[in-house]
Formats: sequence, C-alpha cells, structure tokens
Amino acid sequence: MADSGPTDYIRDGKAIYEESFAIIRAEANLDRFPDDLVPAVVRMIHACGMTDLPGDIGFSAGVAASARSALAAGAPILCDSEMVAHGITRARLPADNPVVCTLRDERVPDLAAELGNTRSAAALELWRPQLEGAVVAIGNAPTALFRLLEMLQEGAPRPAAVLGIPVGFVGAVESKEALAESPLGLEYLTVHGRRGGSAITAAAVNALASDRI
Amino acid sequence: MADSGPTDYIRDGKAIYEESFAIIRAEANLDRFPDDLVPAVVRMIHACGMTDLPGDIGFSAGVAASARSALAAGAPILCDSEMVAHGITRARLPADNPVVCTLRDERVPDLAAELGNTRSAAALELWRPQLEGAVVAIGNAPTALFRLLEMLQEGAPRPAAVLGIPVGFVGAVESKEALAESPLGLEYLTVHGRRGGSAITAAAVNALASDRI
Repeated sequence: MADSGPTDYIRDGKAIYEESFAIIRAEANLDRFPDDLVPAVVRMIHACGMTDLPGDIGFSAGVAASARSALAAGAPILCDSEMVAHGITRARLPADNPVVCTLRDERVPDLAAELGNTRSAAALELWRPQLEGAVVAIGNAPTALFRLLEMLQEGAPRPAAVLGIPVGFVGAVESKEALAESPLGLEYLTVHGRRGGSAITAAAVNALASDRI
Repeated sequence: MADSGPTDYIRDGKAIYEESFAIIRAEANLDRFPDDLVPAVVRMIHACGMTDLPGDIGFSAGVAASARSALAAGAPILCDSEMVAHGITRARLPADNPVVCTLRDERVPDLAAELGNTRSAAALELWRPQLEGAVVAIGNAPTALFRLLEMLQEGAPRPAAVLGIPVGFVGAVESKEALAESPLGLEYLTVHGRRGGSAITAAAVNALASDRI
C-alpha cells in the first residue's frame, strides 16, 4: 500500500489534538496574552488553521476570569447563530449551562420589522431576561454586536463577558472596534479585522468552559 | 449622537449581503473558476472574510453542475459535523433535501473503537446507505475525509460531489491533497492548506443549493 497516502494518517483523536496544540504553541506568538487566556487563543487558532490570528486578537485583561467564573456559576451562553450554538461542546460546560440561540424564534421576524434591523439583531430582544451575567457569543452577525452595544448603552443588564467575533465585509471591522473602544468597559474578547466566525467563537467558549483537552 | 458609532451601521440584511458580495467580487481574483462555481467561491470568501482564499481553492471542473443536479434531484447532504449541518440554510434547499450528521449516533463510539479511528471517521460507516449520489460536506475532521477516500477505494457507493474542506494542523493539508489527487476522479471542491472549516463548507453548500442571494 506504499502508493496509498490515506492509510498513513493519525487516527487517535486525543493524539491529534495534542499534536495540533503543540504545533500552534510552537508557531504562534502568544506572549502578550494573560496565562488564563492562552488556552482560548490556542483553540481559536485551532478552529481556523491560522497561526497569525493572535496579531488581531483584542481582549480585556479580565475576560477569561469573568467568563470562567460566570460559567462555573451556571451562566447561560447567548449565541447569535445556530452554528455557534452547535459548536459548543456540551460535555465541557461546568454547570450544564443553557446554550441559547433565539434567531429562529417565531417572534423574531416581527421584531426585526419593528426595529428596522436584521433578524440577527432583533433576536437579541429575546436575550433580555437572561442577559445579566451571561456569556455572550456573537460569531456571525456584525448587526448583532452593534445591537448589543446599543442595548447596553440604553441600560440593558450587563453580561459577564462578550465574545464578539463576527466575520465579514460590512460592519464586522467597525462593530469589533466599537466593542473594544466602548466606554461601557465590558469584559470582551474579539478578533479585529474581517476574520472571525462561528467556529472561532465556539472554540473560545469551549476553551473558557473547561481546562480539558 | 455624533460620538456614537453603533448608530450608523447598515441594518438591512439584503443590502448587507449585496454590498458584501460586491466587495468580494471587486477584491478577489475569480478568473480561474468556471462560471457555475463562482457563487460558491464568493460565499466561501464571505464566510471567512478573506479575499485571498481563491488562491487555495481546488476543484474539479464539473463539481458545481454535479452538486446542483444532485441537490435538485433530492440528494441528501452528508455532513461530518453538527456545525456544518446547522450552517446549511434549509430554505435554500431545492428539494427539501435531508441534511444528515451521524456523529452523535449512539453506535458511533463502538464503531470508532472497532475501526481504531476517530468518531468523526467512524460516523461515515452510517452514511453507506445514503452515499450513492449524495453531496458530501466535510468541514471539520481530516480523518473523516481520509476515511471517505478509503471507503471509496474499497468500493463504497460514489457521491455526486465531495466538498472536502477540513481545517487544522494535523492531516488537513494531507487529506485535501489526497482528495484532489485521488485516482477515483471524484467531483470535488476543497481549500488547500490549513484553512477550511464548517462555515466555509456550509457556505459552499448554500451557494450550490440556490441562486438566490
């Protein structure tokens, strides 16, 4: 079978993770991150395959501690998309935390029309009862991150941490800058620029939820 | 409100898509792709925010036609991860196509032990009854793509198209090269290198499923 490449691959899931993380730690510059945030950065890189990601990562110094402590206390994880919600590994969650995505709630289309905003942004109206102390995971829609900042400016309850990592060409850069520069002083984690997305965002949640590989 | 950036953003979902796609078409080099594959390439770029992605995209000339025709005829979409499955927009599917992810099937852990492979790879055993003429969407695990190629070499029924876009540091590069160089002559779409993932893969499916924005 010497001509058959596929027979040679590593088949052990744990070994694959360990080797992946070792490659990332060897290649990526992780120096400027607090120790408690490094596992999240490593998993974010792992989710996208790009070791230059750290250069674009923005954060508040206390974001990892705040997210970890909220999750340990049972905080819900509020997601802007089904992909983010389904990328979160339930077995890693420390307190059987609720993973919430309201995007497909039947009230959302009417709310979007009423607000004159996208469905992704309107879906956040339904987060209000759970927003206080929650971990917010926005990995898709810049309008959701913009809307969150508006709601908080208007006095909505404050989440424990905002993982705000939407992706794309219209509003992604600007919404993430607005998060980082917000006078609200939120605990936050982001990837500046156009890059981002549901896989990177879910990976950050998974890393903050557990120390396991 | 002059100091309040968030109030200035575009809130119309359709306008955001249109502007995003216009930016992508202006910035990305799409010249070498067949006309019927361009919408998939545009959406793949849209999903990751990177206009240099086309340089790494590999494909067979007939992949778009084969995938579109299979989907129109009702072919199932076989996904290696829940994130890929949940990134597929059901309303875009032309024939209410089944979207299948067998990763969490209760038989998978035993199959993985039996095969000495990851759960992602073992889950493909449960694809066999639906594999003929299917659209395969692998956006997470290199071992799933390696295993698919093994199964096909051993005579498993042939899918209509393989969107093989796993991400990462161990096996991703090699599994995608094996797909592109396979003597099986599959209709395929891939992103060479470490980049890839569930969002890019689901975006390709969504583009091939419908011509709508």
